[in-house]
Amino acid sequence: MVPQSTESRLFELKELDRKIHRLAAIKATLEWDQETNLPPHGVEERSEQLALLEGMIHDLQTSPQLGPLTLDLSEATIVSDEDRALVRLHRREFERASKLPKDLVERLARLTGVAQPLWAQARRENDFKKFSPSLAQLVDLAREKAELLGYQDHPYDALLDQYEPETTSAEVKAVFDGLQPGLADLARRIAARPQVPNAFLSRSFPRVSQEALARKVATDLGFDWNAGRLDVTTHPFCTTLGPRDVRITTRYDESFFNMAFYGVIHETGHALYEQGIDPRFGTTILGTGTSLGIHESQSRFWENFIGRSRPFIDRYFPSFQKAYPESLGDVDAESFYRGVNLVEPSFVRVEADEVTYSLHIILRFRLEMALLDGSLKSDDVPSAWNALFTELFGITPPSDTLGCLQDVHWAMGGLGYFPTYALGNLYAAQFFDALKKSIPDWSSLVSRGEFAPLLAWLRHNIHRHGRVYTAGELCRQVTGQALDPDFFLDYLNQKFGAIYAL
Amino acid sequence: MVPQSTESRLFELKELDRKIHRLAAIKATLEWDQETNLPPHGVEERSEQLALLEGMIHDLQTSPQLGPLTLDLSEATIVSDEDRALVRLHRREFERASKLPKDLVERLARLTGVAQPLWAQARRENDFKKFSPSLAQLVDLAREKAELLGYQDHPYDALLDQYEPETTSAEVKAVFDGLQPGLADLARRIAARPQVPNAFLSRSFPRVSQEALARKVATDLGFDWNAGRLDVTTHPFCTTLGPRDVRITTRYDESFFNMAFYGVIHETGHALYEQGIDPRFGTTILGTGTSLGIHESQSRFWENFIGRSRPFIDRYFPSFQKAYPESLGDVDAESFYRGVNLVEPSFVRVEADEVTYSLHIILRFRLEMALLDGSLKSDDVPSAWNALFTELFGITPPSDTLGCLQDVHWAMGGLGYFPTYALGNLYAAQFFDALKKSIPDWSSLVSRGEFAPLLAWLRHNIHRHGRVYTAGELCRQVTGQALDPDFFLDYLNQKFGAIYAL
Repeated sequence: MVPQSTESRLFELKELDRKIHRLAAIKATLEWDQETNLPPHGVEERSEQLALLEGMIHDLQTSPQLGPLTLDLSEATIVSDEDRALVRLHRREFERASKLPKDLVERLARLTGVAQPLWAQARRENDFKKFSPSLAQLVDLAREKAELLGYQDHPYDALLDQYEPETTSAEVKAVFDGLQPGLADLARRIAARPQVPNAFLSRSFPRVSQEALARKVATDLGFDWNAGRLDVTTHPFCTTLGPRDVRITTRYDESFFNMAFYGVIHETGHALYEQGIDPRFGTTILGTGTSLGIHESQSRFWENFIGRSRPFIDRYFPSFQKAYPESLGDVDAESFYRGVNLVEPSFVRVEADEVTYSLHIILRFRLEMALLDGSLKSDDVPSAWNALFTELFGITPPSDTLGCLQDVHWAMGGLGYFPTYALGNLYAAQFFDALKKSIPDWSSLVSRGEFAPLLAWLRHNIHRHGRVYTAGELCRQVTGQALDPDFFLDYLNQKFGAIYAL
Repeated sequence: MVPQSTESRLFELKELDRKIHRLAAIKATLEWDQETNLPPHGVEERSEQLALLEGMIHDLQTSPQLGPLTLDLSEATIVSDEDRALVRLHRREFERASKLPKDLVERLARLTGVAQPLWAQARRENDFKKFSPSLAQLVDLAREKAELLGYQDHPYDALLDQYEPETTSAEVKAVFDGLQPGLADLARRIAARPQVPNAFLSRSFPRVSQEALARKVATDLGFDWNAGRLDVTTHPFCTTLGPRDVRITTRYDESFFNMAFYGVIHETGHALYEQGIDPRFGTTILGTGTSLGIHESQSRFWENFIGRSRPFIDRYFPSFQKAYPESLGDVDAESFYRGVNLVEPSFVRVEADEVTYSLHIILRFRLEMALLDGSLKSDDVPSAWNALFTELFGITPPSDTLGCLQDVHWAMGGLGYFPTYALGNLYAAQFFDALKKSIPDWSSLVSRGEFAPLLAWLRHNIHRHGRVYTAGELCRQVTGQALDPDFFLDYLNQKFGAIYAL
């Protein structure tokens, strides 16, 4: 047999790659439809359809054809960054998929199927004991999975790597250790100051105008409606159904302004990333965001760094007032700006402000590490949660429902996921710093609603690359250095120092 | 090798069957999404996704595994009607798919891809010459296809069989020959009478109330909203995305009442058939309507035989008047009934009434037969169309746009499709006759909006069987005899004899 040339191997790999990612996009379409349109009795058969596609994708990812294509291809013989990334990522996927026996995948699926309703019941009834045995099993399985996947220092690395490839728990720990004291200190200093009022955000905001404002701001930021849509779901998300088909969703709360408006900006941030990837990478392994942390940096950038900035409020507040004269007639732009930036320790992560949000993540990261290395037992999670919460926030959760039972992630088998949220904040701050150096007049551009130069900068530096570079590589490339929590702390201190006159 | 038992072969066949039909349902979901939700720039990639699924389905349908499973299974050894049908239908599909070389399928796809825009242009510009060469090629390819598929008497049989399995062109011709004189005679007698007024149907009908009425009538007829939806598309259709997920669409015309109201009843008729199939047949080759003619009988039954009946109008007219007091305040139920039943020769098939509709089909059937046996050339279609139209309707199309260019079917490669529309009317009439014998008080039930007994009759006699019986078998089973056009003629003569006082 004539040995295959690098070129012909790459060609074959790309064929297979396209097929895998076309099937994945089809699966995403069925999932989107499930959240937006599926009639209730269609759910059962839809699960079967998804399982069929899942199986086909898994078969392709572990096909005997793919092994030699990726394992034997020497990266040294490949010229372009993108082809090297293609091989690297497929090798990862192939090794990953090959290391996980079908039996484990099925056991995990069965366990999360059982754990989720138990978690929901436990949360509803504020009864952690109902969920504790499931959590113990989930941790055992996660550890088993980590052992199969392999890791260098800590089993957590293997789990984190699924969401934040090539980032280790030691790196995350170092970053969080640098972040925590500054956050806690800032939160304490803010707590000592008079609170800003924000009750006006919970007045009456009929849905029709909310949707018009949400569509307007998505359009202004650069969302391409010819290559995307906005729909309504219980839990907002952004999903990619094809290289030119990126869909976001939201929910409307008629007595809380922030829900849809900032929710849509957040999802638009994710969508702009996906819509901005080089079209050549569409329907390939390279055609999505490079890590969840980087993805979250894009949603947080628009939601918080821009959407909660003073020039942004200057630009949009008149249209809010026009849409809701009765609810916002007695509010001015400055009060509105302060209102959407209120900082205060709170029990629920998803409702947290920019300062305290990452503390919620640090807490979860620490408990997950302890669960995985066996130093924390499932039954002891509530007391550990409450003790650490009190230490970090100065308040104690009144119930497990508002404490360790608030998030669905563990019940879904998602140990290792949480850090990506905080990494998103940190990457966003570091990117924002670089952007401000490139675009010194960013503030006046934003106050005029001219977002195109900002988007162009993100597109050029981040979006277009898709998965060609890892999060770490991208960060160094764009900002000249590794991830450093000080960018985020500096940003917070400056912004909230002014708001709270610290 | 131990020969496989019938039982184990059937088991294996059913596994494969489920996979094929699960993929087909996934494809239907992507197609539904394309018509309802797909952003414009997503179209290109969606075509690739559909082609991928199409190829996978074709590969499974012609897989070396399927041949022996179906060809060697002796139907005599199979106990149940449904397993026999399963084998029969798979054998059909396997032979069909195996007989058509990929090359022909691709040539046909390419040709229709080119022909459709040319047809659209020719229709727009009333210039048949622009479409004529494509039509000639389409006829050639249809003939080639027919030769490959094989037939006994006429190449048309092979084409018709795709849409109306096990029905021959000779049978259709015999039925149409029995139908045509009676229809033409009735249309002539009506034309000699004073016309009924129906201008009020083209007054103002704002969309919101139209949608409410449409949803109400679909609900009343028995549409299961837990297993289906109603959405808006340019061209209305009904599609099955899973055994408990049947979706219909409509369009709203604010200056024509019938468009959405009768359109939704029509699609609901299709949907009730699909929703009524035995759940055991879901996601199998048996889990859909047995032929397009039988499917159309269900839509026409509810749209015309029930929806345009006097007791139905008695039931619904008050709600129409309440929804549109300005447009219908000066109309009464009797005038409304006559208005929605106006008969008059017209040029456009899709706008035709119950009497003249089937004449449009007979005309197309005759021309298609002549095109296929070579006695009619593509270039001569306009003159042949106009001559036959004048003979059948007594009026001559003023343009090819309103004549031989009005339908997209030929440009889509759909020669052989048209007869199923008229067969639908005939089957509906024959089923209606049987139903009336079973449910003598159908009329008072309808006037009280009690459709459940009618639906139960259809479910028991037709819907639940899915594809277990052919159209011909079903007709004999339900009505005791083969399809006979006299049922339809009797129905029309009675109904329109009264309306037009013949």
